[in-house]
Amino acid sequence: MPGPLDAASSYSFLGPAGTFTEAALQQVPEASGRPWRSVNNVGEALDDVVSGRSTAAMIAIENSVEGGVTAAQDALASIPNLRIIGEYLVPVSFVLVARPGVALEDVRTIAAHPVAYAQCRRWLEARLPDHAHLPATSNVQAATQLLEEGPVLADAAIAPPTIVDHHPLAVLADRIGDNPNAVTRFVLVSRTTHIPERTGADKTSLIAELPEDRSGALLELLEQFSTRGINLTLLQSRPIGDALGRYRFVVDLDGHLHDERVADALLGLRRFSPQVVFLGSYPRADKVPTEYVSRYDDEIFIEARDWLRGILSGEPE
Amino acid sequence: MPGPLDAASSYSFLGPAGTFTEAALQQVPEASGRPWRSVNNVGEALDDVVSGRSTAAMIAIENSVEGGVTAAQDALASIPNLRIIGEYLVPVSFVLVARPGVALEDVRTIAAHPVAYAQCRRWLEARLPDHAHLPATSNVQAATQLLEEGPVLADAAIAPPTIVDHHPLAVLADRIGDNPNAVTRFVLVSRTTHIPERTGADKTSLIAELPEDRSGALLELLEQFSTRGINLTLLQSRPIGDALGRYRFVVDLDGHLHDERVADALLGLRRFSPQVVFLGSYPRADKVPTEYVSRYDDEIFIEARDWLRGILSGEPE
Amino acid sequence: MPGPLDAASSYSFLGPAGTFTEAALQQVPEASGRPWRSVNNVGEALDDVVSGRSTAAMIAIENSVEGGVTAAQDALASIPNLRIIGEYLVPVSFVLVARPGVALEDVRTIAAHPVAYAQCRRWLEARLPDHAHLPATSNVQAATQLLEEGPVLADAAIAPPTIVDHHPLAVLADRIGDNPNAVTRFVLVSRTTHIPERTGADKTSLIAELPEDRSGALLELLEQFSTRGINLTLLQSRPIGDALGRYRFVVDLDGHLHDERVADALLGLRRFSPQVVFLGSYPRADKVPTEYVSRYDDEIFIEARDWLRGILSGEPE
Amino acid sequence: MPGPLDAASSYSFLGPAGTFTEAALQQVPEASGRPWRSVNNVGEALDDVVSGRSTAAMIAIENSVEGGVTAAQDALASIPNLRIIGEYLVPVSFVLVARPGVALEDVRTIAAHPVAYAQCRRWLEARLPDHAHLPATSNVQAATQLLEEGPVLADAAIAPPTIVDHHPLAVLADRIGDNPNAVTRFVLVSRTTHIPERTGADKTSLIAELPEDRSGALLELLEQFSTRGINLTLLQSRPIGDALGRYRFVVDLDGHLHDERVADALLGLRRFSPQVVFLGSYPRADKVPTEYVSRYDDEIFIEARDWLRGILSGEPE
Repeated sequence: MPGPLDAASSYSFLGPAGTFTEAALQQVPEASGRPWRSVNNVGEALDDVVSGRSTAAMIAIENSVEGGVTAAQDALASIPNLRIIGEYLVPVSFVLVARPGVALEDVRTIAAHPVAYAQCRRWLEARLPDHAHLPATSNVQAATQLLEEGPVLADAAIAPPTIVDHHPLAVLADRIGDNPNAVTRFVLVSRTTHIPERTGADKTSLIAELPEDRSGALLELLEQFSTRGINLTLLQSRPIGDALGRYRFVVDLDGHLHDERVADALLGLRRFSPQVVFLGSYPRADKVPTEYVSRYDDEIFIEARDWLRGILSGEPE
Repeated sequence: MPGPLDAASSYSFLGPAGTFTEAALQQVPEASGRPWRSVNNVGEALDDVVSGRSTAAMIAIENSVEGGVTAAQDALASIPNLRIIGEYLVPVSFVLVARPGVALEDVRTIAAHPVAYAQCRRWLEARLPDHAHLPATSNVQAATQLLEEGPVLADAAIAPPTIVDHHPLAVLADRIGDNPNAVTRFVLVSRTTHIPERTGADKTSLIAELPEDRSGALLELLEQFSTRGINLTLLQSRPIGDALGRYRFVVDLDGHLHDERVADALLGLRRFSPQVVFLGSYPRADKVPTEYVSRYDDEIFIEARDWLRGILSGEPE
Repeated sequence: MPGPLDAASSYSFLGPAGTFTEAALQQVPEASGRPWRSVNNVGEALDDVVSGRSTAAMIAIENSVEGGVTAAQDALASIPNLRIIGEYLVPVSFVLVARPGVALEDVRTIAAHPVAYAQCRRWLEARLPDHAHLPATSNVQAATQLLEEGPVLADAAIAPPTIVDHHPLAVLADRIGDNPNAVTRFVLVSRTTHIPERTGADKTSLIAELPEDRSGALLELLEQFSTRGINLTLLQSRPIGDALGRYRFVVDLDGHLHDERVADALLGLRRFSPQVVFLGSYPRADKVPTEYVSRYDDEIFIEARDWLRGILSGEPE
Repeated sequence: MPGPLDAASSYSFLGPAGTFTEAALQQVPEASGRPWRSVNNVGEALDDVVSGRSTAAMIAIENSVEGGVTAAQDALASIPNLRIIGEYLVPVSFVLVARPGVALEDVRTIAAHPVAYAQCRRWLEARLPDHAHLPATSNVQAATQLLEEGPVLADAAIAPPTIVDHHPLAVLADRIGDNPNAVTRFVLVSRTTHIPERTGADKTSLIAELPEDRSGALLELLEQFSTRGINLTLLQSRPIGDALGRYRFVVDLDGHLHDERVADALLGLRRFSPQVVFLGSYPRADKVPTEYVSRYDDEIFIEARDWLRGILSGEPE
């Protein structure tokens, strides 16, 4: 059965050219030479997929400094019939850029996407303690606006190092991110219900709402995984939004829906949670094979089912 | 499919006439008017079933003072293809009997089955502090031996109150059991693999060996039940016998194998334990309906399976 | 022992006048008539406290739509010696404002703080599907900039209803928030190490890092609370920031450090976690008394300690 | 502070000479050359200690085939102020003995203590399928009675191999135990409240009643140990005796009351259980040092207490 990405596929991503999201999309072989749509935010990207304007959208879902990208998580929780079909990692490195001629000591106001700003906070507080922050919807956009005519809203911008390949900006400082190993995780989202093949190095993403009225509910949610030997790589609480204290959880786990232990955990989760959204099983970006102890092997699950079926049908043990 | 007890059935029980086991067998309507074999111990009773000499055997499995009857539990753990098909409760009350003419203050040595002796220990220590105990294989046998010719080994015996209906013995004291509410639980065991109908007031019995090398293994065993809302009515540790510290557990739980939550717990248990023996699902003696919270209803399990099947087959949610 | 708020105290808050944060600070009786400093962000507010410029700062910490305010949580996790001494709730309601004369159908670009924008997303998508979002550091500032001379960056702004008490803006629509019950939770932060009195209706806030190398670590963290009968009102995962998959958790719980069960849970947490930050115990804003089952009463803890002390010192039980 | 065993000490044990219990007592250096009282059962042995007739009693507490010796466990649960001060292991090997001249094929009735009988069941069923069992209070006593004048109650007896050192009996078969590695565990019990020194290779014994009305209570009991990294070497359920389904648990754990993690677990247990009996901490018979992961070290517990004390007293962290 073929996957959703074929010769007719098209892609949406957070633009403009030069963004980390574009770098993630460049890692998708099927996207090479196909139409790409540059959009302004994750909502627009997913709307392209829902409406059929694009086959798939690349969106940032988590980064090592700021955690889950909540707007993306909330969108996946509320828009039905979306599936993650791939995962991509982009190392994150930031430079501070300005119009040529501006000196570091002249910088007062810095334009930056809030997530990028947060990742450079320590550097900025040490070197530019009196700066102000002007939030932007995209770092690349913020940087290019420095070159526009008219009143100057910001003196400098935080941007990816590749910005200078596209625009005549001057680098005031590079590697200003607080964490030299920072990486952002992107996922490719589509409308398909086809599940990518199991590779042995897979992740499964889902969102589960906690039951309203039980303390200890999160413990129970976690036990659905721990009792099947499943490791979680992401666990992010998100308010459901109707009252303080009501949560859903965004979960990434090691394994594929076609792994018996994962399928069984999803059964347990579904019985327990008022609302479970299966977001997809897909190959890990880092291709590291899933490790799990042998007592959670597929054969163990299959043998147990055979044993139970024998008892139910009256066969002697 | 018909059950195992039909017009050709026959029964073994721990005799002789007058034992509590006989009282339990009198509670089985199908056994009325059929052949009964009086045997000397639980091994003999089960051997009758295995060899086909009897259709079923009534054996004591637990009492409220002494706990599980370990010989019966161990026999069920090691003899394959036995199934419990019914449960019966017999109130346990003891009298102290002697040959007519013997006075309470003359009693030195008391014959009694060790389990019965243990249940009267406090009374005996208070009223006959200097007595000696002569263990017997059956209380009724011990009592009748008081009437035999020859050297007197015991002066009195502990016996069920009905003993005086069968034998010319004198009651020295009645209600000598330490617990006025004492009750013994019997089970009817057969070779059938047919599982009795679900009544809504059922028990399921099983024996599970703990994995050898994991501390916390018992916690995991218990979680198989607690995470499915299943209440345990008996949990008895028994050494496997090959080394100190290796255990199997005898478990009785509220519910029937045809309850989804019970079947699912058995699957979990089978995956976890090196050895699980399903001993049967059968109606409770006290007919008290099983209580469980609604989130463990059959429909919840069925709906979750349908949901997962939909995802696996590529249907939109 | 007196608390930190006395006749010489001063306060920082996210300004300008009219913000929800100001509304929170108006709930603090001790702050009435004392100096208030309006600042631009949570970092500046906490820096005022650390440096001694202010006695305390009011900061938003959680809201019912967007969840934890991550900048505030991260600041509390990394700045030592800060303590939460009070909690305040402010109902959140939004209006869409513009310069007088602007009609709703003319609105293209909407200025708003990202958190406020997220809380109005559904209304905006339904009524103004083609709008663009201009992020702002403060809603009030975004609204007042609509009145400034010079190029118009935004056509309208999201603001609290009280904005019209201070500025000649026109309301294009009111109650545009997606959740009519939305509320934001603020905390008052100071440098004191004095713990507010136990009132019986208290919360305790803390931040705990998970151990690096153990799956199941979050389960263990949660068990520190569940095994002492403690209910959590907030549990928010935050990346530590050095690598994907490393987390700390922001926890609010029902109870006060002077409750034995809370103190004992903190001991357990400290033994388990490589890093625990105690952020304070303080009266709940809603004054709802803490409910807990009686077996976690103070007396139970005290009695157990006395019992153990007796055994250790060789007293007969 | 001196221990309870000094130059004036005396000892009770299940006699007569030649029993496994005597072999256990021979392992106690302090008992050498002191008065030994041979008694008939565990109740008598413990009564000697309670009344002061003996300083200590050696009793069998567990064996690798039959599990806990329930009479001993129940006695320790109900007699106050007894403490286990030492543990001893005796390999268990059985021979079948008779009067000289009796052949194996002539044996019909076999006298044996029920525990010994159970340990030889498989051998007996294979070689003497038609035998009857005559329960005895002691194997040695049963064997010596074969030599007495008068009516012959049994044809053979199960006894320890050393029996032929003391009595003119013929061995019909040796090594008839079903498990060649069988071992019985004995404990030395005294009235002292002095706790033996911590050696690093210790056990702690206790008995805890489960709360009446909570399913999941056993899970909670086990968590008191698992959450402190404590390994259990014995867990035995015993009915409390007042109703079916009410249990206490006999627990042996690796570690000493002077280990912080053990003391903390006892605190947790005491808060949870309606009744906890501390039976003692004492050196392991096998001298195998207790293994536990370093995060349950004493220093971790002490450091956490210091940290909490600092917060409670208002010191800056």
